Amino acid sequence: MEEHQSTRKLVIGVMGAGEGAIPADVAHARQLGELIAREGWVLLTGGRNVGVMKAANQGAKQVEGGLTIGILPSATSAICPEVDVAIITDLHNARNNINVLSSNVVIACGTGGPGTVSEVALALKAGKPVILLGASPATNAFFQALGGDAVLVVETPEEAIAAIKHLLQSG
Amino acid sequence: MEEHQSTRKLVIGVMGAGEGAIPADVAHARQLGELIAREGWVLLTGGRNVGVMKAANQGAKQVEGGLTIGILPSATSAICPEVDVAIITDLHNARNNINVLSSNVVIACGTGGPGTVSEVALALKAGKPVILLGASPATNAFFQALGGDAVLVVETPEEAIAAIKHLLQSG
Amino acid sequence: MEEHQSTRKLVIGVMGAGEGAIPADVAHARQLGELIAREGWVLLTGGRNVGVMKAANQGAKQVEGGLTIGILPSATSAICPEVDVAIITDLHNARNNINVLSSNVVIACGTGGPGTVSEVALALKAGKPVILLGASPATNAFFQALGGDAVLVVETPEEAIAAIKHLLQSG
Amino acid sequence: MEEHQSTRKLVIGVMGAGEGAIPADVAHARQLGELIAREGWVLLTGGRNVGVMKAANQGAKQVEGGLTIGILPSATSAICPEVDVAIITDLHNARNNINVLSSNVVIACGTGGPGTVSEVALALKAGKPVILLGASPATNAFFQALGGDAVLVVETPEEAIAAIKHLLQSG
Repeated sequence: MEEHQSTRKLVIGVMGAGEGAIPADVAHARQLGELIAREGWVLLTGGRNVGVMKAANQGAKQVEGGLTIGILPSATSAICPEVDVAIITDLHNARNNINVLSSNVVIACGTGGPGTVSEVALALKAGKPVILLGASPATNAFFQALGGDAVLVVETPEEAIAAIKHLLQSG
Repeated sequence: MEEHQSTRKLVIGVMGAGEGAIPADVAHARQLGELIAREGWVLLTGGRNVGVMKAANQGAKQVEGGLTIGILPSATSAICPEVDVAIITDLHNARNNINVLSSNVVIACGTGGPGTVSEVALALKAGKPVILLGASPATNAFFQALGGDAVLVVETPEEAIAAIKHLLQSG
Repeated sequence: MEEHQSTRKLVIGVMGAGEGAIPADVAHARQLGELIAREGWVLLTGGRNVGVMKAANQGAKQVEGGLTIGILPSATSAICPEVDVAIITDLHNARNNINVLSSNVVIACGTGGPGTVSEVALALKAGKPVILLGASPATNAFFQALGGDAVLVVETPEEAIAAIKHLLQSG
Repeated sequence: MEEHQSTRKLVIGVMGAGEGAIPADVAHARQLGELIAREGWVLLTGGRNVGVMKAANQGAKQVEGGLTIGILPSATSAICPEVDVAIITDLHNARNNINVLSSNVVIACGTGGPGTVSEVALALKAGKPVILLGASPATNAFFQALGGDAVLVVETPEEAIAAIKHLLQSG
């Protein structure tokens, strides 16, 4: 008997600073978005039109067939035009938990501020694997102490993608 | 100067009973899903593997390129296999507000129970157009008194699609 | 063996219109707040400084020892000065589900608008008893059809209090 | 002209581990609860019947007139019997943001796990002062780097109370 196939897609969350993103984080985010879309994975971000969120969406939409989901904090947030499907939560920072629960893997792009830190912590609380890209050594050490094997530290977007593939094979 | 194009897709929410759905509602939901996907619109539902949600997703995935988003109440909900992207809220019924805020138009398929009633009310609160398909006369009258012109009553899935097209032209 | 005593207080939620409240609803809300506080019950409202919420809190604080909890929609909402403890949700209308889950009994004061309708529906979904005070006959009929025995219709604040006492004895 | 007095109470949030709390954290939490209640402040916790939450509530209820609010994650959570008013969110970890938004000052009691880390981060995101009591040096350093002056490190519950009084005078 044929097994019922799910059409469910793999979702990769890219989290990071909005207004306070530094150029290196933005460049990484754009590359991440592009590489995620090339793999056929769905990109999930916080959906706002700024910083890491914006760059990741722009990267993903450079790829034919790339699909981008934005989980917006407010009904009045400016939405990144490269978000295909906007989920309007109107929950403000409580939506951070949705971001991580809806992602198969969470990538924190840059050290980020308190919002990103809350997302990494909530991801670990939910048992999600977290990839840290471009965070400070202190941040890496803090989260590795908090999350153990669930936290992976990488140096480049390509390494992040390789880490996800490895997780998928072993998981 | 070229205007920056958004890739944003139109999202149609289909709400209705889960376990308590009657056969007529399920048949309507399957048709709605299919017709929504044929128009190139995104189908949004509560994502569970039962009732109106399940049928609408199944209908949409019969169409090449149909895209289905499920807004799940719980991290442990059984997810309809025809949901392409699962947004895991873990907010239980508080997620009903996300369903309606994220939909350009909300269709209530069948009279539904208290959950569907809450979604119609929250949609009206948020200023979203609501289409009632197959509700009881008393329900139609109640919501038309509550929502005025924002509430449209239709008899068939095809009429629901026509009503959405009319809303898009006038809106 | 001595049983461990809980200090948990009974919470009565009073829901109703904000800006659109009519004078009769406001008068009822003030009386409800006062009578709830006289019974030693905690008053729970949406906490904003307007309409039914405001009047109920003012009524409760006329009573020595009255305790008022406000569940605020936004971090920037104007809070009724008669709210003793403000719970700031920043969830906007998603907070309506918290209002009803946190109330042992929900009183809808007046017919209210879509927000109040969503709260009554969410209360019924959660299995909470709902008392309708001063709603229109059509609203009463609609919710009685939806909620059955869980919905009680009363004419005065005193009847609402009597209905709660009856529920407490039988529940 | 007489100014309209608010009856609003000061709310102090005490956050920390549930099942994983160590004895030192539990002892601190109990003392914190007692000292907060002695000041006439309201104690706010996550409300569950375990760890830091339970101990803080027990401490507060040893004081005549102490008032305890629990912000519960789930409609089925076991509630600490020393919680006077239970706010049932059914939002699971998304409720962490409510905990911090509703507290005038947040005390993290112990290093805690990912849940507590998320609450400290969300508190800083919301601009709330955070007091760290009994956290590891690495945790203290991490959050001081993240939050700057908004983060205070103390060694004892008495110092935490003194720090709150100082904040109230200067704020």
